[in-house]
Amino acid sequence: MTDILHRVGMKSPPDEVYKALATRAGLAAWWTNNTQGESKVGGMLKFRFSNPDGVEIGGFDMHVLELDHARRVLWQVVNGPEEWIDTRISFDLKQEGDYTIVLFKHNGWKEPVEFMHHCSTKWATFLMSLKSLMETGKGAPSPDDIKIDNWN
Amino acid sequence: MTDILHRVGMKSPPDEVYKALATRAGLAAWWTNNTQGESKVGGMLKFRFSNPDGVEIGGFDMHVLELDHARRVLWQVVNGPEEWIDTRISFDLKQEGDYTIVLFKHNGWKEPVEFMHHCSTKWATFLMSLKSLMETGKGAPSPDDIKIDNWN
Repeated sequence: MTDILHRVGMKSPPDEVYKALATRAGLAAWWTNNTQGESKVGGMLKFRFSNPDGVEIGGFDMHVLELDHARRVLWQVVNGPEEWIDTRISFDLKQEGDYTIVLFKHNGWKEPVEFMHHCSTKWATFLMSLKSLMETGKGAPSPDDIKIDNWN
Repeated sequence: MTDILHRVGMKSPPDEVYKALATRAGLAAWWTNNTQGESKVGGMLKFRFSNPDGVEIGGFDMHVLELDHARRVLWQVVNGPEEWIDTRISFDLKQEGDYTIVLFKHNGWKEPVEFMHHCSTKWATFLMSLKSLMETGKGAPSPDDIKIDNWN
């Protein structure tokens, strides 16, 4: 087992950051604009990604396991790339001075495969997109996400 | 034991990317402009970081263990924050089409502490600085690095 870990801090109240993590509209504004489903405990969220020509190239279905207001969001992957199935993604929030700190974990990877390296860097750029959304009002969700390598 | 992993790809030949990882001038152009020491096997590199007022706030001393031309760079941390001591940092290069792929590992962390989360995100932004250096001629080394949280 091996994990992807990240820490970002943004000048925005925990309540606002939580909204960006716990609502469909919030998620669509920093991760992928094609976000469907219901963000409620027991619900399913469907994230889809497109290439620059608008052709859908894949995505993830997440079972929402925890929604703890202004504190924590936890999902389990139920559909997507094989390496992601049954992995868990969590966002833990806390306030430090002017900042809300987001501690991110994507755990349960079976092996540290090359795709995991890619996803680690990609998560960092999406979390920076969340920071940008909270601090400037504008994120960089797919399909306008930052490209990191030949896998996009 | 737990690792930080990243994958970035850049439109530049492996030979050029290697120069940015295996020479003092190259490292100074994407990681920190205060890079001292000798990039040779058995040598020591000293990376120092400053706050926006120019006051030095810390850094790392790395023992250079491997320099495999256009393929691999490996360092061991011998001085710096306690959590970094004896950890190892490697960059493995390969060509895929127009891209040089950099597989990055920072391994040997004893515990997945909060500081490790921070360093994981920070490494991603520095590797994106390397990509920018190779593709545009301009990186974002410290003290002009991208700030990710209240720890900088």
